[in-house]
Amino acid sequence: MPNVQRLERGPMMTGGTPLRSLDEEELLARILPVFPLGEDLVVAPGDDAAVLRTPGHVVATTDTVVLGRDWLDAWSSGADIGHKVVAQNLADVAAMGGRPTGVLVTLVADPELSLEWVLDHAHGLAEACAAAGVAVLGGDLSSAPAGVVMVSVTALGRLDGEPVLRSGARPGDVLAVRGSLGLADAGLRLLQADAVDRLPEAVEHQRRPQPPLEAGPEAAAAGATAMLDISDGLLRDGGRIARASGVVIDLDPRELAGDVDALAGAVGAEAALDCVLAGGEEHSLLATFPAGTLPGSWRRIGSVRAPAEGEAPGIVVAGRAVTHTGWDHFRTT
Amino acid sequence: MPNVQRLERGPMMTGGTPLRSLDEEELLARILPVFPLGEDLVVAPGDDAAVLRTPGHVVATTDTVVLGRDWLDAWSSGADIGHKVVAQNLADVAAMGGRPTGVLVTLVADPELSLEWVLDHAHGLAEACAAAGVAVLGGDLSSAPAGVVMVSVTALGRLDGEPVLRSGARPGDVLAVRGSLGLADAGLRLLQADAVDRLPEAVEHQRRPQPPLEAGPEAAAAGATAMLDISDGLLRDGGRIARASGVVIDLDPRELAGDVDALAGAVGAEAALDCVLAGGEEHSLLATFPAGTLPGSWRRIGSVRAPAEGEAPGIVVAGRAVTHTGWDHFRTT
Repeated sequence: MPNVQRLERGPMMTGGTPLRSLDEEELLARILPVFPLGEDLVVAPGDDAAVLRTPGHVVATTDTVVLGRDWLDAWSSGADIGHKVVAQNLADVAAMGGRPTGVLVTLVADPELSLEWVLDHAHGLAEACAAAGVAVLGGDLSSAPAGVVMVSVTALGRLDGEPVLRSGARPGDVLAVRGSLGLADAGLRLLQADAVDRLPEAVEHQRRPQPPLEAGPEAAAAGATAMLDISDGLLRDGGRIARASGVVIDLDPRELAGDVDALAGAVGAEAALDCVLAGGEEHSLLATFPAGTLPGSWRRIGSVRAPAEGEAPGIVVAGRAVTHTGWDHFRTT
Repeated sequence: MPNVQRLERGPMMTGGTPLRSLDEEELLARILPVFPLGEDLVVAPGDDAAVLRTPGHVVATTDTVVLGRDWLDAWSSGADIGHKVVAQNLADVAAMGGRPTGVLVTLVADPELSLEWVLDHAHGLAEACAAAGVAVLGGDLSSAPAGVVMVSVTALGRLDGEPVLRSGARPGDVLAVRGSLGLADAGLRLLQADAVDRLPEAVEHQRRPQPPLEAGPEAAAAGATAMLDISDGLLRDGGRIARASGVVIDLDPRELAGDVDALAGAVGAEAALDCVLAGGEEHSLLATFPAGTLPGSWRRIGSVRAPAEGEAPGIVVAGRAVTHTGWDHFRTT
């Protein structure tokens, strides 16, 4: 767990209506009307629990964002954080082959937090959920010590077939991606450099990632053997599939050249390569498919083979070992 | 939202192995083996999301506890907090008529928090889940500013029939309870008075409530018309059923005399009455049933009638209006 610095109070804590001036009922009366109700909802928020119609299997995941650790007030609005925390949770549902159906949202906040930030945040949550056809099932509100703002989302989904795990990749499969590579990390670097105009779409992807949610069930139906969403970088997440499956994944640098080129003008060639190979928070889907079954909307970026004699499962680039910091091997190919 | 005081660092922050000395993988390797896997689990923690087998309907609820707001280090161990946060979530599932099947757990903590506290907490979570046949489906770990420790649980359950809402009580129904009344509040008062020996079972119920989970589906099957768990007090929660259902609930003080007497020796007669009528965190189940259908394990404590001409829906005691602070009306009956 990395250390978190205590933050000075930024705009979200000042200049509006502080939460301490409302009781919980008043606050909920402002927030709840913002949220969408999905088709599968049987009992909406307000009772002891929500009830969701579902056949077969339920997919469940949770992810939390903390002010100062996962976002800065100066870089992201309340609505941005709403979009982002929903996106990263729904991407995990899609990465199992599931269709997201509902979320529960918990806000734990310093009572000095402004109501205006909370409502902006609620609208961001609602937009991201509505775009995905997902209901807000309920949540919880709690106060916290000075300077603390934390949003925790649990996402549920339905799974019509079998789940796609990380452990199913087989020698002979192709490795493919659906969505962008490196864009969110490039956006973070532009925010850090105060140069957001150089590639606004990268900054937008950092603030409001849009995972290709429909691609999850599509991949599952097409026979994907392993899948995850890229949250910690292509090398690290690809390595997870490789180790869980006991295979070697070989990335094809020719297939990544266009991704690197697209970012190089904004962040420089070396950083662009880092973004594509190691950039997190992208939330594109990475999957393996048996040869010949790749859906047309997915892009092949590598292959899967059995480990050689004495070789450990893992990820390589054009047949050569690469570590998280060992870009030299890659750059010389 | 009540204000929260910043806390001085108590024992949970000192004297052990601080979380900052472990990386997330090492911490998970210590925590995950503690947790039970339920019968309905298809994919266990470790992939993008967990997968839970379920027919029909999913019940979902979430509840969060924050150090200094919901518990004090001096009064509750890590295991106590694990028991309590699971119990209050599972009670909400049971109060819909559902059977709890799984939980997701998020810990957001100051990196100075001790590993020993976290493992003790994990054991408490695990014990409470195992006792209920509930799986730990996954969760999230995040660091937080100094002094912050927060646990957020989302509970899922299956519902074989129709959900029991708060809004279904009808004139002629009987009001009944399953479980204790006032015990958790009496325990809190004994902790505050540093007099835990006066009624240890009350302190134990405050620290580790044990909701009668099996009574939820039982009540649903028996035809309960409305149900909730008592988290904010009998009067307030009973009033919620009354208003949601558009009825008047009339508590029978003769049926509550034994509950008051059981606490009076430890906290005094006046406080005992307050505990029974207004004590929160009890997590017993409160429900209404059509006359003649009350299961033998439930205890009748009142009746349901239509509002008189010009009378608002709500809760009364022996036919007389009572407010949250208006105990006089009650005490004179």
